[in-house]
Amino acid sequence: MKTPLKGIIPPLVTPLTDNVTLDIDGLERLIEHTLSGGVHGIFILGTTGEFAGLSYKLRKELIERTCQQVKGRVPVLVGITDSAYVESLNLAHIAVDSGADAVVLAPPYYFASGQPELLEYLQRIMVQMPLPLFIYNMPVHTKVVFDPETVKVAADIPGIIGMKDSSSNLAYFKQVQFALRHREDFTFMIGPEEFMAEFVLTGGHGGVNGGANMFPKLYVELYNASLNRDFEKIARLQKKVMQISTGIYKVGHYGSSYLKGLKCALSVMGICSDFMAEPFHRFNQPERDRVAEMLEQLDYKSLI
Amino acid sequence: MKTPLKGIIPPLVTPLTDNVTLDIDGLERLIEHTLSGGVHGIFILGTTGEFAGLSYKLRKELIERTCQQVKGRVPVLVGITDSAYVESLNLAHIAVDSGADAVVLAPPYYFASGQPELLEYLQRIMVQMPLPLFIYNMPVHTKVVFDPETVKVAADIPGIIGMKDSSSNLAYFKQVQFALRHREDFTFMIGPEEFMAEFVLTGGHGGVNGGANMFPKLYVELYNASLNRDFEKIARLQKKVMQISTGIYKVGHYGSSYLKGLKCALSVMGICSDFMAEPFHRFNQPERDRVAEMLEQLDYKSLI
Amino acid sequence: MKTPLKGIIPPLVTPLTDNVTLDIDGLERLIEHTLSGGVHGIFILGTTGEFAGLSYKLRKELIERTCQQVKGRVPVLVGITDSAYVESLNLAHIAVDSGADAVVLAPPYYFASGQPELLEYLQRIMVQMPLPLFIYNMPVHTKVVFDPETVKVAADIPGIIGMKDSSSNLAYFKQVQFALRHREDFTFMIGPEEFMAEFVLTGGHGGVNGGANMFPKLYVELYNASLNRDFEKIARLQKKVMQISTGIYKVGHYGSSYLKGLKCALSVMGICSDFMAEPFHRFNQPERDRVAEMLEQLDYKSLI
Amino acid sequence: MKTPLKGIIPPLVTPLTDNVTLDIDGLERLIEHTLSGGVHGIFILGTTGEFAGLSYKLRKELIERTCQQVKGRVPVLVGITDSAYVESLNLAHIAVDSGADAVVLAPPYYFASGQPELLEYLQRIMVQMPLPLFIYNMPVHTKVVFDPETVKVAADIPGIIGMKDSSSNLAYFKQVQFALRHREDFTFMIGPEEFMAEFVLTGGHGGVNGGANMFPKLYVELYNASLNRDFEKIARLQKKVMQISTGIYKVGHYGSSYLKGLKCALSVMGICSDFMAEPFHRFNQPERDRVAEMLEQLDYKSLI
Repeated sequence: MKTPLKGIIPPLVTPLTDNVTLDIDGLERLIEHTLSGGVHGIFILGTTGEFAGLSYKLRKELIERTCQQVKGRVPVLVGITDSAYVESLNLAHIAVDSGADAVVLAPPYYFASGQPELLEYLQRIMVQMPLPLFIYNMPVHTKVVFDPETVKVAADIPGIIGMKDSSSNLAYFKQVQFALRHREDFTFMIGPEEFMAEFVLTGGHGGVNGGANMFPKLYVELYNASLNRDFEKIARLQKKVMQISTGIYKVGHYGSSYLKGLKCALSVMGICSDFMAEPFHRFNQPERDRVAEMLEQLDYKSLI
Repeated sequence: MKTPLKGIIPPLVTPLTDNVTLDIDGLERLIEHTLSGGVHGIFILGTTGEFAGLSYKLRKELIERTCQQVKGRVPVLVGITDSAYVESLNLAHIAVDSGADAVVLAPPYYFASGQPELLEYLQRIMVQMPLPLFIYNMPVHTKVVFDPETVKVAADIPGIIGMKDSSSNLAYFKQVQFALRHREDFTFMIGPEEFMAEFVLTGGHGGVNGGANMFPKLYVELYNASLNRDFEKIARLQKKVMQISTGIYKVGHYGSSYLKGLKCALSVMGICSDFMAEPFHRFNQPERDRVAEMLEQLDYKSLI
Repeated sequence: MKTPLKGIIPPLVTPLTDNVTLDIDGLERLIEHTLSGGVHGIFILGTTGEFAGLSYKLRKELIERTCQQVKGRVPVLVGITDSAYVESLNLAHIAVDSGADAVVLAPPYYFASGQPELLEYLQRIMVQMPLPLFIYNMPVHTKVVFDPETVKVAADIPGIIGMKDSSSNLAYFKQVQFALRHREDFTFMIGPEEFMAEFVLTGGHGGVNGGANMFPKLYVELYNASLNRDFEKIARLQKKVMQISTGIYKVGHYGSSYLKGLKCALSVMGICSDFMAEPFHRFNQPERDRVAEMLEQLDYKSLI
Repeated sequence: MKTPLKGIIPPLVTPLTDNVTLDIDGLERLIEHTLSGGVHGIFILGTTGEFAGLSYKLRKELIERTCQQVKGRVPVLVGITDSAYVESLNLAHIAVDSGADAVVLAPPYYFASGQPELLEYLQRIMVQMPLPLFIYNMPVHTKVVFDPETVKVAADIPGIIGMKDSSSNLAYFKQVQFALRHREDFTFMIGPEEFMAEFVLTGGHGGVNGGANMFPKLYVELYNASLNRDFEKIARLQKKVMQISTGIYKVGHYGSSYLKGLKCALSVMGICSDFMAEPFHRFNQPERDRVAEMLEQLDYKSLI
């Protein structure tokens, strides 16, 4: 894997047929669908992949099957976030044994840590980490922000090669980037697809954008347009992204609306099941009908 | 187990020798120490038990050993909170197989749920739950409060027999109690030891108080004094509790100060190791010295 | 004014006929209504008094009229919380000139302060403060908690004579009380009426309870029952308080539900207008009907 | 004033000599300093202007003197945010009488409103509003976000002509922009200077950036470089902005660090006093020395 990693890395949803069973055909279709759209990597077991709701057995199977299916065509990144240190390391070992390229780690998310505690945690876990690691900033779920000063010190720990920020706070992430401006090898990836283009225009490396599960080509083209500073194209493609962001992701109530809308759309599109891990539940028919209608309005077949 | 459950149920710390190994002798001593103080039950794998930082293997061992050691002398409650539904059920099955009396469940704590989602989650998981269950309200860590209306409906789900509230918001918990005033069999337990006496004076059933790891007799006597409305005794004993709360629990920085102080004190007292599960780390010598000094000021040997 | 201040101090609603006009007759009736119920003081311009939504002209008029109406029968406490230091001092001077007995101050509530900033603010403002002052802890609105250590130091500033806590966190307030256990003259008052009885049972001085606008006698009797440790009476009266708390205060949506329900009930009872200061608006007829029905269920005429 | 308003609008600090006195010479110098740097407007009484800490008398004087000094050379925007509706309108009338061009309004910031309450508040206040109005989104201080749906409806209220967003959440603000994509006359301004360039590159109208108090030319050039898509220049100038953001704004502790650093730098530069409105206090000498040193590292004289 070349560093810094660049491009569009979809945070894969985890196709399920029930609470303990992978939708294996769906997973295969989803991987091929995203790869055929030109994505630059695959990230499994992130927030979008509902990692926290999956059993370890299922996470293991998902890691193995994904690596087998991708077969080295693009880098595979594996989320190993867990509130238990040992389980994070176990997942990292499964990842390396399966042929994954890197792992992604957010802070332990039950009992929030102070910044020195967080830094020491990273220092201790990296001693045993068998793969390169991306720091994952996701404060809405973890209740902890990686202070720019913490990232600056952490970036010198051997094996830490980049960071994904899903805080939606671009002022924050630019402070982190500035603190590490001497580190040309360090990868900066952004979660929110709404401003991935802006982020790439001024030097960001790419996006870990949920919408790329549905429309990998759209996000890859938007990424390329940003690299090429093709503003007319950026405007046209970003409009589609904003339609998705303010449409498909807002059908439900509560924070889970994004997850439910995304899985529902993938199901309507025939790619994979919309079964969700607990504590969430797939949309009922009325919401599904609205998602289907929004897909039509997007003229979605033109986007695939 | 008689309902409602009453009295002092220490949320047991988990004695560890390293990240993957139980301090077996420490666990045995800790259980005997609390039982000899007259506690009315034992609660393992709560927040104080660092459940979220422990591997499943270790949780399983802890459940089995605790049940073996307690041997039915008091009810054993087992925390099964997890962000993965399947793992919560697995833990419940281990609990029932080991002879535990009940389980305790907080909301999945990575991706916060809306109230209807939370209720449906309880409804679905209770279908397969092999033991009676206490709802566990712990919003600072889970980011979710069980609305009184949610609890009111949930309390009718077969198998849900009580609630432990660690929100520190007594106005809230009295609203919950009022909503369930027709339910004489429903148990109401409070986490914060600072106002356990007040809670019991007006009808609360008891406390799941961390300090009872160190001084079970103190908390049991305070509970009894509250039952007996012995205000002179309440004042005298509550002063000790407040010394602990504003002393031993405040030596460190960050939210983890309570956990570190408690485990450190148990180590100074010779009961069990102060090794902590990641991402936390035991106190260094200067903090340990302060804890030891505070124990002396408490005249702690008189409290055992 | 004797210290510590004890008993029930209603945080008076501010009767309005429109956004800039006091409902003078309503104010007179409300004051006489609460005094006739035996309250031990009157607190104007608190959160319940919608202080932040009132013009300074109106606040001045309210202070003057209240002091004239009360005529020294009980102490009058005046809220002087403001985001502007100078305006807080202006209000304090109006209070002293009008014959008020003390002032009540929460932190400046736009730009949140750190603890040392908060302490220095108190130290500076107290130099010019013409009346004794109660610290007002109201974190949900001010975004700032007075740390127990901050209160401990602040309590030594000449002129600071007590504290009102509306955090609903009884563990917190007991830590503050414990830090000041050597200060027999310092007043501790609690906002939430749901646990005023518990608070008084173990040494708290009383309640600044919104419901005492409607039913002063109920809250005074509950206070007395707590002093007398008459548990049968506490149980009976607290049930009424909980009916109010889970009924009248929960008719609306959003945080303003408490304020709207309280003013609506006072209007249904014929005491004062339910006009509300912006940004809020009185209940419409359907909500008013529900409040009226709840008042009937309370058998409210028996409570007056 | 042409709509949409475009460019750099510094949120002016309020120069003070003490808590109740304007630093009149400082204000004059500051206005001339920013105007000479080519700014496209002036915004007084925003968060950076410490509006919430100023007496009404002082706010009035500031509005009048600013309008007199600017003399129509650029539009003057006046912050009228207040927790009291009547005081907001009073400020708006002072603004129109003084010749200001528009007003800027954040939600009442003591008691947080629900979205329908917020919308109704805007609808009612706009009936009497004598000047065009910008909505001001500042959730860290007001505890309220304007939902994109709320803004969409509010934008149709006559007189509401734009929005300033200081949430730092670019995903959010792009959702607002998308909801109003049919409104070519509506102004979108961003507070955080760290990503003003990105915001302007894809269609944002400009920045209300605190750093433009110190270095108006730097921010105007960065704005122009963004309009001209001059990426080499953007990179060079944004580096300076990030030095300021991670240096001068981070010398202090607590949220007030930005305000203190900015006023301190202006004082070191000889532009105006660094006296701060309560509850804050200017930096002491050691912090002032660090700010002076940072200004040297910036080679700040080249930036003026």
